[in-house]
Amino acid sequence: MAEEQNNTTMVVFSGDLDKAIASFIIANGAAAMGDKVTMFFTFWGLNILRKENVQTPKKKAFMEKMFGKMMPQGPDKLGLSKMNMGGMGAKMMKKVMKEKNISTLPELMEMAKGLGVNIVACTMSMDVLGIDKDELIDGIDYGGVATYLGEAYDAKVNLFI
Amino acid sequence: MAEEQNNTTMVVFSGDLDKAIASFIIANGAAAMGDKVTMFFTFWGLNILRKENVQTPKKKAFMEKMFGKMMPQGPDKLGLSKMNMGGMGAKMMKKVMKEKNISTLPELMEMAKGLGVNIVACTMSMDVLGIDKDELIDGIDYGGVATYLGEAYDAKVNLFI
Amino acid sequence: MAEEQNNTTMVVFSGDLDKAIASFIIANGAAAMGDKVTMFFTFWGLNILRKENVQTPKKKAFMEKMFGKMMPQGPDKLGLSKMNMGGMGAKMMKKVMKEKNISTLPELMEMAKGLGVNIVACTMSMDVLGIDKDELIDGIDYGGVATYLGEAYDAKVNLFI
Repeated sequence: MAEEQNNTTMVVFSGDLDKAIASFIIANGAAAMGDKVTMFFTFWGLNILRKENVQTPKKKAFMEKMFGKMMPQGPDKLGLSKMNMGGMGAKMMKKVMKEKNISTLPELMEMAKGLGVNIVACTMSMDVLGIDKDELIDGIDYGGVATYLGEAYDAKVNLFI
Repeated sequence: MAEEQNNTTMVVFSGDLDKAIASFIIANGAAAMGDKVTMFFTFWGLNILRKENVQTPKKKAFMEKMFGKMMPQGPDKLGLSKMNMGGMGAKMMKKVMKEKNISTLPELMEMAKGLGVNIVACTMSMDVLGIDKDELIDGIDYGGVATYLGEAYDAKVNLFI
Repeated sequence: MAEEQNNTTMVVFSGDLDKAIASFIIANGAAAMGDKVTMFFTFWGLNILRKENVQTPKKKAFMEKMFGKMMPQGPDKLGLSKMNMGGMGAKMMKKVMKEKNISTLPELMEMAKGLGVNIVACTMSMDVLGIDKDELIDGIDYGGVATYLGEAYDAKVNLFI
């Protein structure tokens, strides 16, 4: 029964490295305990799912191209929500985490896939930001607010990050 | 019975255009599915509810005047949480959304009212920021943390945005 | 029974003064109504729990020292998430709150302790940011994501701030 499960959902709105790490640590922790986890990536959060330097066949409008160029392409390009200092903060944090043997964001994302975390890209945000399916990582789902709410109503823990 | 319903609450703390849009899309989606939705606007979130260029009869202290002048007045004046570039980012996003026939924030807010979404302004934050009832849009409620918690305990989905 | 209680949890990720105040107002409101409240402080949120100018016996690596120096030490040093203006915004808000007899953040934190709010520092974030137990306020607990999830699954209201 759905009521018996400790389902978890997250709206990942932010595209900051630190918040992305936090969201995947929570997601993987919950999934490792056997729970169903759905992460719904919207707005800047979509940048976490972008592939690096991908060329899409889609013909983009001027503003879509501009958004595309200016937004970070994938987990290695994200900045911190605080103390980013033009990217130096993000580099420092990645270095420290490596030294302390803490998983990097790409590793956490791989883990999430392995644990069956359901990764959903928000199609409306993709449309607004001009992001094509070809530009996002493989093995993810696509949906809108109804998809999200359907999962959230079955979940015990719902976070907006 | 309260337990049977999929009530939703949101603390809308942020006054960013992108986060405001996201919160109303979720609110309207939930309300359209027949759920009771309460949005509790606090701190910078109050700016979403401000009328433009309104004169309040209330005599304001120096700092209240300053906060009032510096904070955005209503949905058309909000900036983005990222890539705002002095307002250019917000303009770009509004232009793109219009081109793609996605509802604007003022339209989403009208829809929310029509769907019966309960909009509550946090009275303590109004006091801190020196915002008077005359300065906020009509048809909303006022309350404090107890109002919020009362709704949140009956809800299945509670978000802080 | 756990199901009968209106437990509340918060992940306090942000170290901004305004968000810290909001989180403690919600926590204290819920605790005053007799509910069990757990606040899980992670990443920048740890700065809220730091003592001022404390010397730790721990020998720190270069980057730990740098993070330690650059991050705000305790509630009096935090900035606002918006309109901070190099600290002036935070000063203004504290002044206004004092004039209106609203509790300051240190007072809210004392109240939380008195009401039995469970304050947990995230050990993984402490490790990443190089923060030692000696540097955090007394009377708090320590834990990881499993601690958080254990509380969240028993709670009705779960927020990420």
